[in-house]
Amino acid sequence: MSAKPHTYVDGDRLWSRMMSLAEYGKRPDGGVDRQALTEQEIAARAQIVRWGRELGLTPFTDAAANLFLRLEGTAPALPAVVVGSHIDSQPTGGKFDGAFGVMSGLEAVNAIISSGKKMRRSIEVVAWTNEEASRFAPGMTGSCVFTNRLSISQAEAIKDAAGISFAAARDLVLAADDRVALRDMGWPIASYVEPHIEQATRLEEAGVPIGVVTGIQGTRRYRVTILGEPAHAGTAEREVRRDAMLATARILTAIDGEAARIPGFKFTAGMVNVKPNAPSVVPQEVLFSIDIRHVDDQAVDEIDAAIYRIVEREKGRCDAIVKEITHAPSVHFDAIVQSKIAACADALGIPHMPVFSAAGHDARQLSYVAPAGMIFIPCRKGISHSPEEWSEPEHLWAATQILAELLVQLASE
Amino acid sequence: MSAKPHTYVDGDRLWSRMMSLAEYGKRPDGGVDRQALTEQEIAARAQIVRWGRELGLTPFTDAAANLFLRLEGTAPALPAVVVGSHIDSQPTGGKFDGAFGVMSGLEAVNAIISSGKKMRRSIEVVAWTNEEASRFAPGMTGSCVFTNRLSISQAEAIKDAAGISFAAARDLVLAADDRVALRDMGWPIASYVEPHIEQATRLEEAGVPIGVVTGIQGTRRYRVTILGEPAHAGTAEREVRRDAMLATARILTAIDGEAARIPGFKFTAGMVNVKPNAPSVVPQEVLFSIDIRHVDDQAVDEIDAAIYRIVEREKGRCDAIVKEITHAPSVHFDAIVQSKIAACADALGIPHMPVFSAAGHDARQLSYVAPAGMIFIPCRKGISHSPEEWSEPEHLWAATQILAELLVQLASE
Repeated sequence: MSAKPHTYVDGDRLWSRMMSLAEYGKRPDGGVDRQALTEQEIAARAQIVRWGRELGLTPFTDAAANLFLRLEGTAPALPAVVVGSHIDSQPTGGKFDGAFGVMSGLEAVNAIISSGKKMRRSIEVVAWTNEEASRFAPGMTGSCVFTNRLSISQAEAIKDAAGISFAAARDLVLAADDRVALRDMGWPIASYVEPHIEQATRLEEAGVPIGVVTGIQGTRRYRVTILGEPAHAGTAEREVRRDAMLATARILTAIDGEAARIPGFKFTAGMVNVKPNAPSVVPQEVLFSIDIRHVDDQAVDEIDAAIYRIVEREKGRCDAIVKEITHAPSVHFDAIVQSKIAACADALGIPHMPVFSAAGHDARQLSYVAPAGMIFIPCRKGISHSPEEWSEPEHLWAATQILAELLVQLASE
Repeated sequence: MSAKPHTYVDGDRLWSRMMSLAEYGKRPDGGVDRQALTEQEIAARAQIVRWGRELGLTPFTDAAANLFLRLEGTAPALPAVVVGSHIDSQPTGGKFDGAFGVMSGLEAVNAIISSGKKMRRSIEVVAWTNEEASRFAPGMTGSCVFTNRLSISQAEAIKDAAGISFAAARDLVLAADDRVALRDMGWPIASYVEPHIEQATRLEEAGVPIGVVTGIQGTRRYRVTILGEPAHAGTAEREVRRDAMLATARILTAIDGEAARIPGFKFTAGMVNVKPNAPSVVPQEVLFSIDIRHVDDQAVDEIDAAIYRIVEREKGRCDAIVKEITHAPSVHFDAIVQSKIAACADALGIPHMPVFSAAGHDARQLSYVAPAGMIFIPCRKGISHSPEEWSEPEHLWAATQILAELLVQLASE
């Protein structure tokens, strides 16, 4: 180690608070069900505000119910350094996805305060609203609205499966947070850092505790509707059928064949809804999702073109509507932020390696408006979005210690 | 015409009663939603019992809630002639499917009674329970239990989508029918005749009002479960995925390719249920239905073998379970019954032609225990299981007049 670190992160308290936060929305199987803007998430927000106030941080929120805890700098007019992630979970989620980034930010700020050092720039710990998309789809609502990738009125109109709008759920949260001041969105950010579990196995396989994230792979998502005609399974002759399911099967098989030609390409049709979905009726309509991802945007473009071509070729006597709903090219994180994370790790003697993120994160949205970066830690077998999700206490500590040192640098600039 | 008919069927009353029966479970769009053992069907049963009692017929029911109206013959110990169909409908059903067979039987018996002729054998008009399978699957429950193709305890255990068992629903119907005597099942039948709409277009295209049904095409039904593994759409590499939906797509495409080689072959995958059915999760499990039909049993055997072969070949890294749930070879109706129907039509000067039934009917089950036959009438554009279902009053009359003459013959034997 080249020099004594400026801060000391208390790994035991970090772990204990991670476990405390996991009590909000705890599932009987040990997992967490804390979907965005629910009662469970409101209670978790209140706990985070309490922890922040104990440290002397000022809580703020905004029209997307993003939650901020601000450590005021000595030059408060300068753009702040922002650190965090999200606290909403999948219905069958774990204790670490998202929650770790927020708690890591809070503990890093705690370490800075304890060090007695005064920072030039303010530091804000953030919990972005509805990253997971499990309640309101698509996800990353808070960070998208903050960075103006989505208008607040578009966000407000999104409804959950029960028909409750984002606006109505948000209003409940804001009402519950009645001592938290409402602030405008989109203010300038000096830099953004998001610690997160890897949700893949490269760090674990390499035996390396820290990943310096180089970027996020490109994603496009589609909804495809195949319109056929219902008919009696016993009487309708093949020649007159307009079978929406067989058209779907041909389309999926053909796209998969194209995708298989590109190493590392990920093609998923995770949702398939058939109407009327009766064994003795020829399917009238199929609505299915397509999710394609690859590090190389050109590969994504290739399969994008193949999708339209294949749907036309394989739809047969059906009609087809392809609607692109997400178009996110690959993100490459700021090189200076990456090198600073690596330098902090080196200074602390903590091994690290560059990794690419296959999953999406709020940091994608922030990278469009500020220098941004992510710090990954291993998670057991890469399992995430599951009660089985697990990361080791020493890895949480390592990332948070690096983060504290990094924040000292970034907030001193 | 070779001789004066023995009976006179009142076509106006037949039509008017068909329309009256369609009031039970009437849909706003003009169709009928009268699913098996529902409140609507109980009310329709009561109406049929009233009409029967007005004619002096004795109602009976049994443990499968089949409803019989008996015209006692002069030799009541002899096996009876049975005529009818079913009165349950699809949720988006029409006025004619099933209902016509029951009302045609009732009007034919009415015509015989009005003629003053005494029949040697008893005649029973029947409404079999749950032919459609829309509430309890599989269908033809009443006729299957009566003919011992299914045990009553197997039938009793079948549940509807709300979790209500056939037994519980049946008990409600029997309680509502408290003045209808309960009788044993499986008694010997001299012959069985079922009038029905064609649900296809051959009669309409030929301009012929009557089809003498030669048989029912073979059907096999399967439930296939493909077991994969859930995974993150963004992080799981293609090589480790066990994608149950892509396996399903390959399987359906390949089976369809085999089926396409056999003229007239009908292959339907009408139901496809994906778990967890989330756009960003690799499908863990797919349950789908297969329905295959062809006139030639050998063709059905060929595709049956292909299904097992293709599932093994195309399942990839998934596991697969193929379960055959229906195995019904093609039925060929009794030649004597067919020739008698044709002779009665000839005697009345009504044009007829032989037709094969692509759809299943209760007559399939009865053909295993008695000489059985069916009389088809055209339905507009072949549309059935739809509020659009329509048949012409004169065709209803023609089939019923033939039926009355046929019953006179069959009940005199």
